[in-house]
Amino acid sequence: MTTPSGTQELVLPYAADMHVHLRQGDLMRMVTKLVRPGGVDTVYVMPNLQPPITTTEQALAYRDQLQALEPNVTYLMSLYLSPDLTPEEIRKAAQAGVVGVKSYPRGVTTNSDAGIESYETYYPVFQAMEEVGMVLNLHGEVPSDRDNGICVLNAEKVFLKHLKKLHQAFPRLRIILEHATTQDAVEMVKSLGDTVGCTITVHHLELIVDDWAGFHHNFCKPVAKYPHDREALRAVIKAGHPRFFLGSDSAPHPRSAKENVHSCAGVFTSPLVLPYLATLLESFGALDRLQGFACEFGRAFYGLPLPAPSAPTVRLQRMPVAKLSEMEELPFLVPQSFSFAKDESDAQPSASSEVVPFLAGRTLTWRIVES
Amino acid sequence: MTTPSGTQELVLPYAADMHVHLRQGDLMRMVTKLVRPGGVDTVYVMPNLQPPITTTEQALAYRDQLQALEPNVTYLMSLYLSPDLTPEEIRKAAQAGVVGVKSYPRGVTTNSDAGIESYETYYPVFQAMEEVGMVLNLHGEVPSDRDNGICVLNAEKVFLKHLKKLHQAFPRLRIILEHATTQDAVEMVKSLGDTVGCTITVHHLELIVDDWAGFHHNFCKPVAKYPHDREALRAVIKAGHPRFFLGSDSAPHPRSAKENVHSCAGVFTSPLVLPYLATLLESFGALDRLQGFACEFGRAFYGLPLPAPSAPTVRLQRMPVAKLSEMEELPFLVPQSFSFAKDESDAQPSASSEVVPFLAGRTLTWRIVES
Repeated sequence: MTTPSGTQELVLPYAADMHVHLRQGDLMRMVTKLVRPGGVDTVYVMPNLQPPITTTEQALAYRDQLQALEPNVTYLMSLYLSPDLTPEEIRKAAQAGVVGVKSYPRGVTTNSDAGIESYETYYPVFQAMEEVGMVLNLHGEVPSDRDNGICVLNAEKVFLKHLKKLHQAFPRLRIILEHATTQDAVEMVKSLGDTVGCTITVHHLELIVDDWAGFHHNFCKPVAKYPHDREALRAVIKAGHPRFFLGSDSAPHPRSAKENVHSCAGVFTSPLVLPYLATLLESFGALDRLQGFACEFGRAFYGLPLPAPSAPTVRLQRMPVAKLSEMEELPFLVPQSFSFAKDESDAQPSASSEVVPFLAGRTLTWRIVES
Repeated sequence: MTTPSGTQELVLPYAADMHVHLRQGDLMRMVTKLVRPGGVDTVYVMPNLQPPITTTEQALAYRDQLQALEPNVTYLMSLYLSPDLTPEEIRKAAQAGVVGVKSYPRGVTTNSDAGIESYETYYPVFQAMEEVGMVLNLHGEVPSDRDNGICVLNAEKVFLKHLKKLHQAFPRLRIILEHATTQDAVEMVKSLGDTVGCTITVHHLELIVDDWAGFHHNFCKPVAKYPHDREALRAVIKAGHPRFFLGSDSAPHPRSAKENVHSCAGVFTSPLVLPYLATLLESFGALDRLQGFACEFGRAFYGLPLPAPSAPTVRLQRMPVAKLSEMEELPFLVPQSFSFAKDESDAQPSASSEVVPFLAGRTLTWRIVES
């Protein structure tokens, strides 16, 4: 839409971000309040807390904490897959509204075949999940194993056979390959049935390996890979494939945990999800897919209602063309950091109390304005 | 050799490290004095100073500085390939004892084919180098070009056709592919004639991509790659191929330049070159190749005499087997850092005045003892 003043605008429903880390403590208090400002009102919440969320009670208690901080967001809760998880707990969790179970590679104890063979020990749990309609979210990487040629660059590709096998064993179980980063993953998900979905992050639509080689705020897992992999992620969005949808994997870490001997993996995108996406999708000719990718396909896969016509909307405004050459157009500038200092009277946030967002200091083409 | 006390020892000539960065200023003063303690008495010195060394005078002045700091090392000097370098300067440099010319990707101005096509503009220089017997050292990577699928992971592979073409154009010119990191590079060098050599660093015998993903002190260019690439480097050393030899690319950066928003590329290995190599080569069954790889093949390729039987030697001692399980065996421990504080009375070196070496804090199997 173009307004009378010539400014381009887009009006969308609030987005559903099907993979977020909302953390704990001070960081949780900051991050949770930044979900809606990013244009998102529905989030699928990761259970990798300390300790991990392995029971219905923990999930509900965590949801209560999040709701107290920001009641105008829908929190879809998940459990952490571990050997303690039982079919009984699955049925209890489903009854209580818990939506899914997340599998991390390290949660899969191993003896052979790069550690995923033992998914079979979870088959009774998956059976119960299939019965009650719970979703299985897979961190789709096998552990690195340099003696067998497996490293962060091919860990996702090697994992795909396990995805296929799981889908064949549980064809009615909804499975999501999280944060796909490779052409191989896109092809595999496309080849499988309608119960297999795939999330794509914001940052993997922009980054390749060069962008995290030495640049620590772009370092995440799975690592960003080759140009042709990024192209495959873009292409499947551009094609409007309904089983590929937004899961930002927004993963805040304090600056001190990134600029150090060893960086924690994760990119923080929550506060600007829709402006990032509008800017990126437009850059590769897929702006018309924004609403499907960010607002509709994820909800549909999870069986949630699409936003009603009367629901609140997000209004995105494009930078006037005349200003596109300006490097630092303040209203469109990504902040250098977000502070989560305990005491807001602290004038100087430190490296341990601020998070550097994706593309910090860069100008986006789109921003959210008051509806 | 096993001593009467049961300790294993190795006695070698001093090594020749055919690729080192000795830097400038305070860093140069520290690094240059650590060459011999690492078991090396001959180094091929990189010209990428600020400003770069582009003339014979600059090279000789730099050599004087280095010799004043440590006269018991032989410094083989090089010029930085740039459009200003003339055949006349090549002849003058050769006469003055300058040994070679280093080509960096960014020194190769570009229009097409990822920036290396214009090597042809240097053909008169290469012609003169061939005539006077100078060596051409290639940083064998094309610039990343994400629109054409080129990134840090395939930049070396894509470069190899240029190496082949140069060798075909100048079959008598000695060319060295520096710091090879891929199986493709090893195969290409093996396939070419006797005038094409290849250096291998210490760190690329140990690292794969996982080791620099988030671990900044292992980040270097070319980046360490797949397990099968590391295996190819190890295999060609194990085979005793005489055109593959030590060029450590030891590249010190202050700790503050590594643990930051953006890490400088480089791994610092000079102070412990032979202990690292003995430990690594033994780990993959190639300890018997240490002398050829580190002391002989490089000198032979460069046309230098091999060390005389009467020359000083380096004595390496292996950790007694009984201590192998001890994690922190002090005499075999890699220091956490090397300080280059201007004022040695500074009790507390800062992140900007110390360098973290390769495998800092780890225990090596071998150490150098007094001869």
